[in-house]
Amino acid sequence: MAARAAVAGASGYAGGELLRLLLSHPGIEIGALTGNSNAGQKLGALQPHLLPLADRVLAETTPGVLAGHDVVFLALPHGQSAAVAEQLGPDVLVVDMGADFRLKDAADWERFYGCAHAGTWPYGLPELPGGRAALEGSKRIAVPGCYPTAVSLALFPAYTAGIAEPEAVIVAASGTSGAGKAPKPHLLGSEVMGSMSPYGVGGVHRHTPEMIQNLSAAAGERVCVSFTPTLAPMPRGILATCSAKAADGVTGDSLRAAYEKAFADEPFVRLLPEGQWPATASVYGSNAVQVQVAYDEAADRIIAISAIDNLTKGTAGGAVQSMNIALGLDETTGLSTIGVAP
Amino acid sequence: MAARAAVAGASGYAGGELLRLLLSHPGIEIGALTGNSNAGQKLGALQPHLLPLADRVLAETTPGVLAGHDVVFLALPHGQSAAVAEQLGPDVLVVDMGADFRLKDAADWERFYGCAHAGTWPYGLPELPGGRAALEGSKRIAVPGCYPTAVSLALFPAYTAGIAEPEAVIVAASGTSGAGKAPKPHLLGSEVMGSMSPYGVGGVHRHTPEMIQNLSAAAGERVCVSFTPTLAPMPRGILATCSAKAADGVTGDSLRAAYEKAFADEPFVRLLPEGQWPATASVYGSNAVQVQVAYDEAADRIIAISAIDNLTKGTAGGAVQSMNIALGLDETTGLSTIGVAP
Amino acid sequence: MAARAAVAGASGYAGGELLRLLLSHPGIEIGALTGNSNAGQKLGALQPHLLPLADRVLAETTPGVLAGHDVVFLALPHGQSAAVAEQLGPDVLVVDMGADFRLKDAADWERFYGCAHAGTWPYGLPELPGGRAALEGSKRIAVPGCYPTAVSLALFPAYTAGIAEPEAVIVAASGTSGAGKAPKPHLLGSEVMGSMSPYGVGGVHRHTPEMIQNLSAAAGERVCVSFTPTLAPMPRGILATCSAKAADGVTGDSLRAAYEKAFADEPFVRLLPEGQWPATASVYGSNAVQVQVAYDEAADRIIAISAIDNLTKGTAGGAVQSMNIALGLDETTGLSTIGVAP
Amino acid sequence: MAARAAVAGASGYAGGELLRLLLSHPGIEIGALTGNSNAGQKLGALQPHLLPLADRVLAETTPGVLAGHDVVFLALPHGQSAAVAEQLGPDVLVVDMGADFRLKDAADWERFYGCAHAGTWPYGLPELPGGRAALEGSKRIAVPGCYPTAVSLALFPAYTAGIAEPEAVIVAASGTSGAGKAPKPHLLGSEVMGSMSPYGVGGVHRHTPEMIQNLSAAAGERVCVSFTPTLAPMPRGILATCSAKAADGVTGDSLRAAYEKAFADEPFVRLLPEGQWPATASVYGSNAVQVQVAYDEAADRIIAISAIDNLTKGTAGGAVQSMNIALGLDETTGLSTIGVAP
Repeated sequence: MAARAAVAGASGYAGGELLRLLLSHPGIEIGALTGNSNAGQKLGALQPHLLPLADRVLAETTPGVLAGHDVVFLALPHGQSAAVAEQLGPDVLVVDMGADFRLKDAADWERFYGCAHAGTWPYGLPELPGGRAALEGSKRIAVPGCYPTAVSLALFPAYTAGIAEPEAVIVAASGTSGAGKAPKPHLLGSEVMGSMSPYGVGGVHRHTPEMIQNLSAAAGERVCVSFTPTLAPMPRGILATCSAKAADGVTGDSLRAAYEKAFADEPFVRLLPEGQWPATASVYGSNAVQVQVAYDEAADRIIAISAIDNLTKGTAGGAVQSMNIALGLDETTGLSTIGVAP
Repeated sequence: MAARAAVAGASGYAGGELLRLLLSHPGIEIGALTGNSNAGQKLGALQPHLLPLADRVLAETTPGVLAGHDVVFLALPHGQSAAVAEQLGPDVLVVDMGADFRLKDAADWERFYGCAHAGTWPYGLPELPGGRAALEGSKRIAVPGCYPTAVSLALFPAYTAGIAEPEAVIVAASGTSGAGKAPKPHLLGSEVMGSMSPYGVGGVHRHTPEMIQNLSAAAGERVCVSFTPTLAPMPRGILATCSAKAADGVTGDSLRAAYEKAFADEPFVRLLPEGQWPATASVYGSNAVQVQVAYDEAADRIIAISAIDNLTKGTAGGAVQSMNIALGLDETTGLSTIGVAP
Repeated sequence: MAARAAVAGASGYAGGELLRLLLSHPGIEIGALTGNSNAGQKLGALQPHLLPLADRVLAETTPGVLAGHDVVFLALPHGQSAAVAEQLGPDVLVVDMGADFRLKDAADWERFYGCAHAGTWPYGLPELPGGRAALEGSKRIAVPGCYPTAVSLALFPAYTAGIAEPEAVIVAASGTSGAGKAPKPHLLGSEVMGSMSPYGVGGVHRHTPEMIQNLSAAAGERVCVSFTPTLAPMPRGILATCSAKAADGVTGDSLRAAYEKAFADEPFVRLLPEGQWPATASVYGSNAVQVQVAYDEAADRIIAISAIDNLTKGTAGGAVQSMNIALGLDETTGLSTIGVAP
Repeated sequence: MAARAAVAGASGYAGGELLRLLLSHPGIEIGALTGNSNAGQKLGALQPHLLPLADRVLAETTPGVLAGHDVVFLALPHGQSAAVAEQLGPDVLVVDMGADFRLKDAADWERFYGCAHAGTWPYGLPELPGGRAALEGSKRIAVPGCYPTAVSLALFPAYTAGIAEPEAVIVAASGTSGAGKAPKPHLLGSEVMGSMSPYGVGGVHRHTPEMIQNLSAAAGERVCVSFTPTLAPMPRGILATCSAKAADGVTGDSLRAAYEKAFADEPFVRLLPEGQWPATASVYGSNAVQVQVAYDEAADRIIAISAIDNLTKGTAGGAVQSMNIALGLDETTGLSTIGVAP
């Protein structure tokens, strides 16, 4: 029997992508859909690509509306999830697609988000060491940020294998949907088409402590992260170019072996054949992660590059994958490794 | 038991899109994959978005390779399908995604394609009047062109209802994948990004006689078509803006009623609510067709606009839809009306 | 001695493009720059591409600020120009880049704009018959709309020559800058990239009466216009695909002769060699207009297609060109026919 | 009196951009234009944006055609410049836009380019320490690569000031025109739109030794460079994100002071106000360089980011700037710091 799922925040990009996936998920029946400023509107006007739900009307995000579901997804602005989650019983699976419960360190949270720390939930990145165990049977899931998903998957094998120095330099390009649907001048099509630009430079992007948390756990020591995000002229996709000094004795072969081992049984991560590099277009609309690594001998650095769809594996697909584990379903249910290209 | 399907021309855009759909089709098992200049290569290098098929090797397009399948899809350059089809037995379902068997009029074929007419097969646009009946149990299917799919669906209800004069003016914008994967200077990203340009102007585009054939059949008289295609800076999608003088007495209400009637039971065509207009992004990767109509009273013209994904409903999705009918499967099997957006 | 020019509305796209051109204009000294909600900000934060003006601070749009200039450009929202213009003396050249003074028919104005008609100023499209004479020595100029510029230039030669029937069908694609810089959800990069969509369908777009006014004047009789604008995934450019039934006896040769005659001495209009078609990329950032025509014999229609940059020839370049004439300067001063491509 | 300039390789992107600039250059008269496979064709068919040159016919690249010019620009494939340059007299200013004469180290050249080293010419990046002196009166100029231009300008002030450790990590995104006009499948619009992908990863990109050469000269010691280029979905532009460990005692203030000093008198380099970051759209079609720096205290790294137009400052604009110096003209003649945006 299908589990009944509600989606709070169904009018945004994360909510829309989640609904796209849930519509094809055999174990889920879509229940209440809510949206604050858009409550009362039909979904067909807000998410015109979701034809089967075109006549569904958005409700307000209230405890009453969200009651009576097996799973509640929260696609709300940062800082709003805790209040809603409190009102949902301990038996409901709550999947938070916001940042509220990702960080373990309250001081980090307060420094980067500027409000009180709500707590820490099991972290929804199954591919990390111990990742699946943390999610099995859980009733609370913190879905990772899109950049931390791409970066952690690109680099953790090097840290787990102990072959990278604990100072990572990361430059990532993201499609504009990562910035959300609220209209701002710098996100206008006229501004972003034909333009690459950085933002949040110098260690101030909120996803930085999350990367540090994941990579430090893999390394068994604190990993320092220099992270520069850039906005790319495309709707979706993250390309994360990550590097770190190689530990003594690393070779191209030992590097590749570490990655082959890390991803050998992963249903969604594809270590590409040597010589082929990730492209965001190849994972468009898919839950797949493409990874490739190289050892730059002259610079003595490991270069690890990953491509994901920021809305799928980076948000809604990752949420569904973790939900599947929590519900005891096959982890790949309702998810695909097939991109829409060209 | 699943039908076994071969795909001749698996390295191109039409072949790739077909494989994307067949991978999710519960009634199809993917058999031989062929490609001429790419024979011997792994599909992972040519279609990196199709991860589950990454290690499949392309064979040459020979009768032996294509033998032993229930369905054979031909995604070959125009003029090459007939020779291949002849070597496949009458019990094999052959679905031609090229132009070879679309036109009924041999003179039209010869004028527009410059070679001998190979014949006419049942036409794979189920939504047209009599369209499904022609496909049921058929062993040969001619998949329509992408522009004729968009244009015929936008205009046939007006002609069937007798409310449009038989002179249609059509301007359509297509994504670049419609021009194929063979590299040509004018299709370089540097050239097409930021640019709109027409081509095949003045009645010379090969899809013109196909539109005339479809609309004339709906109208019961010869419909004259002025068709101007334009190349738009996007990978996928067709937006067809079609108009014709209104017959005497047409009103906005009678126009809308004609379209509501035509599409009432269509699983893939969505007549949008009044005031909402089609967008190619909404049908990205989906088999859906979005249609809207308006009556321009001052100009006394009917304006009908459709949006499709040229590779899905316009090519590979249309092929699967017609195959489903021919095989006696549910028409929507393996197809979706959900787009990938934003 | 250079004329001193003020720009009211310097923070928007039209104002920014105007400043880009004026910076290279040898006869103009840039004076006051104003912006309402942005008053007090440096231009470098609002128009980061205009480095030489980066430290200029925007003033409020008041009579005092605008006083003491030889030329005042108004790049204001529709309906706001008249009030500002009234306060400028009769000896100041006022160039309105808004719609307020374009239409001659007050009823048309009120129907399409919903407010009282402010009047009619000399119309800034020098290439139209009598266009230059109307501008020479004028102290008031109404800059045409971007679509009417592209459409009128594509079609007036056919109407002047009496070779087209008075019912024109126009489908035009515009880059997103035509929709302005005010942030709206449907203009987000995430929404527009990869998408073509129509708007203002059915004769309701405000540029329709302006096209009718221009083409009717050329034809010497009322020309009926069916106009469908579409939004294209590019920042700039308009491609206007225009057609009309041919008058009796028209041939490809007589059609071409009419266009050659109309544009023989035009410095900014290029009738392309036969077989070459306009592309918006070729006029990017330039004041040039590319035009091509064809006679579709089967449909008996004239097809005329033009490409312009909507911000240059379609707005700010057209404004400068008309200003040059009004000031008695060489018409091409400060303007270029060279596009930025690829 | 204007100098007469020939352009060998006028049909490609570098040649086209050079002609765009030379057309507005008051000190240059455009002489012979050559192109190999395109010899005999009109430029209007190959570079449709250069209307004033539309009727010019391309000649073959022969000594006779190039004779009799004051300046000869070579926009030829790598490895072809030396043979042509030899046939031009010592009094002709030869500006090589290819790579042939950039590197000082013959072994580096041979390792990265796989052929014999032709020599080393004065290097056309005036902003580097000693850059202008090397060009004054020179009759030979090696125009820098596009990536080395962006990277060297972003990082040399830190090395000159001795505030960065000699290990730089660089990730740069380039528009597709950097890959040239020769049609290849992975450069098709269908492939590049919506996609970010890396290439030449692991220290193998040919521009790496050029960066090392420039940065090492600034640092006075060998600088190690890890360089990862990525292809971005835009026609033009490079965004270079560069970083290095800070030397002991660096602060945000001392970092900024170093950059202010380095660029204080540079006509084309703009160190943006604090808090504003470069965007490629802001330098579209311009010779300007936008630079911004930040000190990431937690990671103890200097982050320096630059944006250029790869075809303008990165190629043809840089060539004109260096030519101006060599000819004794004002360095900014014919060049602009104004971008075409949005």
